[in-house]
Amino acid sequence: MHYSTAQRVEAPAMTEAHHVADRPLADGRTRIDFQTEPSRYRHWKLKVDGDVATLFLDVDEKGTLFEGYDLKLNSYDLGVDIELADAIERLRFEHPQVRAVVLRSGKPRVFCAGANIRMLAGASHAHKVNFCKFTNETRNGIEDLSGNSGLATICAINGTAAGGGYELALAADHIILVDDGSSAVSLPELPLLAVLPGTGGLTRVADKRKVRRDHADFFCTTEEGVKGKRALDWRLVDEVVPSSKFEEAVAARAREFAARSRRGDAKEGIKLAPLARSFSPDGVEYGSLAVAFDRGARIATITLRGPTAAPPASAEAMVALGAAFWPLALARELDDAILHIRLNEFDVAAIVFKSSGDPGEIIAYEQFLDADKDHWLTREIRHLWKRVLKRVDLTSRSLVTLIEPGSCFAGTLAELAFASDRSYMLLGRHEGDNKPPATVALTAANFGAYPMSNGLTRLASRFLANPADLEAANAERGKLLDAEAAQRLGLVTFAPDDIDWDDEVRVFLEERASFSPDSLTGLEANLRFAGPETTESKIFARLSAWQNWIFQRPNAIGEEGALKRYGTGQKPAFDTRRV
Amino acid sequence: MHYSTAQRVEAPAMTEAHHVADRPLADGRTRIDFQTEPSRYRHWKLKVDGDVATLFLDVDEKGTLFEGYDLKLNSYDLGVDIELADAIERLRFEHPQVRAVVLRSGKPRVFCAGANIRMLAGASHAHKVNFCKFTNETRNGIEDLSGNSGLATICAINGTAAGGGYELALAADHIILVDDGSSAVSLPELPLLAVLPGTGGLTRVADKRKVRRDHADFFCTTEEGVKGKRALDWRLVDEVVPSSKFEEAVAARAREFAARSRRGDAKEGIKLAPLARSFSPDGVEYGSLAVAFDRGARIATITLRGPTAAPPASAEAMVALGAAFWPLALARELDDAILHIRLNEFDVAAIVFKSSGDPGEIIAYEQFLDADKDHWLTREIRHLWKRVLKRVDLTSRSLVTLIEPGSCFAGTLAELAFASDRSYMLLGRHEGDNKPPATVALTAANFGAYPMSNGLTRLASRFLANPADLEAANAERGKLLDAEAAQRLGLVTFAPDDIDWDDEVRVFLEERASFSPDSLTGLEANLRFAGPETTESKIFARLSAWQNWIFQRPNAIGEEGALKRYGTGQKPAFDTRRV
Repeated sequence: MHYSTAQRVEAPAMTEAHHVADRPLADGRTRIDFQTEPSRYRHWKLKVDGDVATLFLDVDEKGTLFEGYDLKLNSYDLGVDIELADAIERLRFEHPQVRAVVLRSGKPRVFCAGANIRMLAGASHAHKVNFCKFTNETRNGIEDLSGNSGLATICAINGTAAGGGYELALAADHIILVDDGSSAVSLPELPLLAVLPGTGGLTRVADKRKVRRDHADFFCTTEEGVKGKRALDWRLVDEVVPSSKFEEAVAARAREFAARSRRGDAKEGIKLAPLARSFSPDGVEYGSLAVAFDRGARIATITLRGPTAAPPASAEAMVALGAAFWPLALARELDDAILHIRLNEFDVAAIVFKSSGDPGEIIAYEQFLDADKDHWLTREIRHLWKRVLKRVDLTSRSLVTLIEPGSCFAGTLAELAFASDRSYMLLGRHEGDNKPPATVALTAANFGAYPMSNGLTRLASRFLANPADLEAANAERGKLLDAEAAQRLGLVTFAPDDIDWDDEVRVFLEERASFSPDSLTGLEANLRFAGPETTESKIFARLSAWQNWIFQRPNAIGEEGALKRYGTGQKPAFDTRRV
Repeated sequence: MHYSTAQRVEAPAMTEAHHVADRPLADGRTRIDFQTEPSRYRHWKLKVDGDVATLFLDVDEKGTLFEGYDLKLNSYDLGVDIELADAIERLRFEHPQVRAVVLRSGKPRVFCAGANIRMLAGASHAHKVNFCKFTNETRNGIEDLSGNSGLATICAINGTAAGGGYELALAADHIILVDDGSSAVSLPELPLLAVLPGTGGLTRVADKRKVRRDHADFFCTTEEGVKGKRALDWRLVDEVVPSSKFEEAVAARAREFAARSRRGDAKEGIKLAPLARSFSPDGVEYGSLAVAFDRGARIATITLRGPTAAPPASAEAMVALGAAFWPLALARELDDAILHIRLNEFDVAAIVFKSSGDPGEIIAYEQFLDADKDHWLTREIRHLWKRVLKRVDLTSRSLVTLIEPGSCFAGTLAELAFASDRSYMLLGRHEGDNKPPATVALTAANFGAYPMSNGLTRLASRFLANPADLEAANAERGKLLDAEAAQRLGLVTFAPDDIDWDDEVRVFLEERASFSPDSLTGLEANLRFAGPETTESKIFARLSAWQNWIFQRPNAIGEEGALKRYGTGQKPAFDTRRV
């Protein structure tokens, strides 16, 4: 595949900020940046005290991502959530000794008022949807922190937890609500704004906390929410305590949960150094990864580069490498690249995954990680890749992997081919190119380390029809499989030879760019996740899809709709037809 | 609850047809009627020959439900599907000796072109969504016919099965495709119309037939579809046969499937007599059920009446009663009433279920049905109620059950309370009313006969948090439970006394009418279906939600959108941003 200069010239001139949203970014930003670090936080404070960490939400009203609103009452925009996501990653990598984390407010009488309504009212549909997706991923990450890294999460609510505020609490293992006659949990989105709680609230109420459906119906249609004993009886919180006992209860629960934690004994973490990146009009360069935009063709090509050195000699040497350890560096870079495309480059229709490197080297890294798989850092790296690959699955762009000579789609990198809507693998060589034919290789990582949000591995989802196909693939672990073998095993979609390659790939990419982006989003959301459903997959499937629909309806976003009229003193006017 | 005359007077004058769609109904109809019978079919022919039935689709181009389009190439609108749904019911009740049914075309070279595009392009959003819901329910009913009534379904495709045509095939147990070099199966909605296959196609491809996701991606983005060997290799069909062997293969497969059928030995069915109904501006009167509209308050009250006679003396006597047998009559009437509200009364915000009768009599009927539960007719009646109750679950209106003195919410009728978003049960008596306090009663029917689309009973879904609650309810089977007991067991939401009753109910109903209808639809779709997911629930949750979103997007329905421009020769112009 090649991008012609002609196409580039025809492409409309686009500034990076062009597609971000309908309103300008604040503070002169030209793009949304997903990289931050605790010293730069404006909204969260991370305090670590022995094996207990506390995350204080204390939103800087003026520290908004876009212009045009203030973040009152600990309400949030994407910028606030980027800090939370960063803090959670740092608890994993920089603070392996932490066994429990308390989420609480740094402000009196309010825990969190949820997503900022004026921000939502003025955001583009694309931003709103991708904002919700990111916040959902962050909350799923909190649950992953507890469920898979043994770091218990306690949400201490001393004040009002409304909407997204309560949804943040719902991600925790244990919710403590102060019983002061006024503090309440609520999901007021429907009565107040004519939208849904969009960050997993309904799914977690129904499926995680298993609140009875009629209680849930009452709760979700009651602007003021539920407090005290009823909140406990209805399973909306786990504990209510009087104001006078609040601090004591929070501290006691943190100690108890920390004591029960299954987290290991590491005392020292590694430093998540800032990613070295350079942005240009045509792409982004990272250490082990490059993003190239062909804006005329509406394609982003992500090329992942294999390791330049053999795996370290020991786990200690890996720790010493820290964030420079290739598998960790690449995961962080891929995550950043995907988020950049999602939120800053709405016009990209398809993401093309390519790779360059020696598949044998990657297999060596996989073996290194497996040899020390109970080491805290290898575990965290596997979990990070799991989350990054889930982020890929949930990216609403057409995904295609091109497997050509010189590529290294082995083990973890091969997951990108299985995460893609299609893959093309060159049969033989490109004319005039003397690189040996492309191979793919499976490793143990492809058979368990990286479940999708449906709870199955990508290969298990792929071979749902016939588990024997999964066994056949498993039997070929560790081998460098050529295009014929990969095709026979069902690992790639098509394996054209050099004569057909350019045309097949070109036609596919042109087609994707020509189709309605919305129908592709719906198609991919339906075809990518066969098999069982989990709370997580239900959030992205059922809840998000309905929310997106509602976000598009005049009753929410029209001139007379609830989002537009919120705070104006005027009541919204609804089209009363039920659909 | 009472409807004030004042409210009625304030209500805008509405003709019944007002909300049906943006275009007028054809042939002077004033509403969509869900009742039909074979002698009135314009599009299907039902031929019964021993234990094999054949349903021929031979659409009358001019026999449209609305004005403004022709049903070319065996394409369909809701009117065509109402006949199919009717035919399926008649196979159940009128032809118990049939063990296999063949679905095929009555036209040469085309099986079915799917939902009519011009119909879709001109339909209101509310009609489109409810049209898709009904067609989905019909296809789920075909699968229920096979899965639970042992009547195997074979789809014989001799020509093109495109879009909804292939989706109809997907509902069958066995798909035979002629291999003539041109006949193909296809889902061309995305490339052709910028929408999704909306009748379960994506879900059945991914989850029922377990087509590999990259194959599915190719298939669903390829206008011309897939034929011959590839269709078989990719699991899109079960059998391909040359033209010369087609009739032979269809007949052979029908015989084989009929021979393997688990259907019983009944030789004679009962006649599904036309429902006696009378429509007035304020409601509909059926034999055992009444619908009353309060259009000012946007409420439909459905009052179900208990039996007027004891159960028949024997199964033979039940067969002799036929369609007049109370449980069967009531199920058919409730189904018709729900469909009437869904498609003809879009402005109804809430459906209120009430009942009148003797709960003891209902328990007697439940016992009668259970005593003969292997009788073909009692089984079909239970399955019908199961489908009708699922239809209630999937009705996007707020549902509330009011349990007052004189009501008979026992067994099957109690399911309506569990299907409702909330229920209110009067504690004690209404002042000045000497009827004894209300009771509810559980029977065996509440613990297995009526799974929801998630595969669980309504009580199991309700008590997901604590299976002991389900056991506690089970222990009270057969007892007449007063409001206190029902409340303690978690069977009703609220149990106000006479002093609070009117206000509580009024406030609830006023609230529901004041909320955004769209957000209620999304809320209810998320809260009603906790627990596991099935192919069926995924269709209504994931697929329908995405399709509804796409149906609302300018890329599909805008002036430059694909639905609007279809057939004009002009290409659609898309907003290229991915969301």
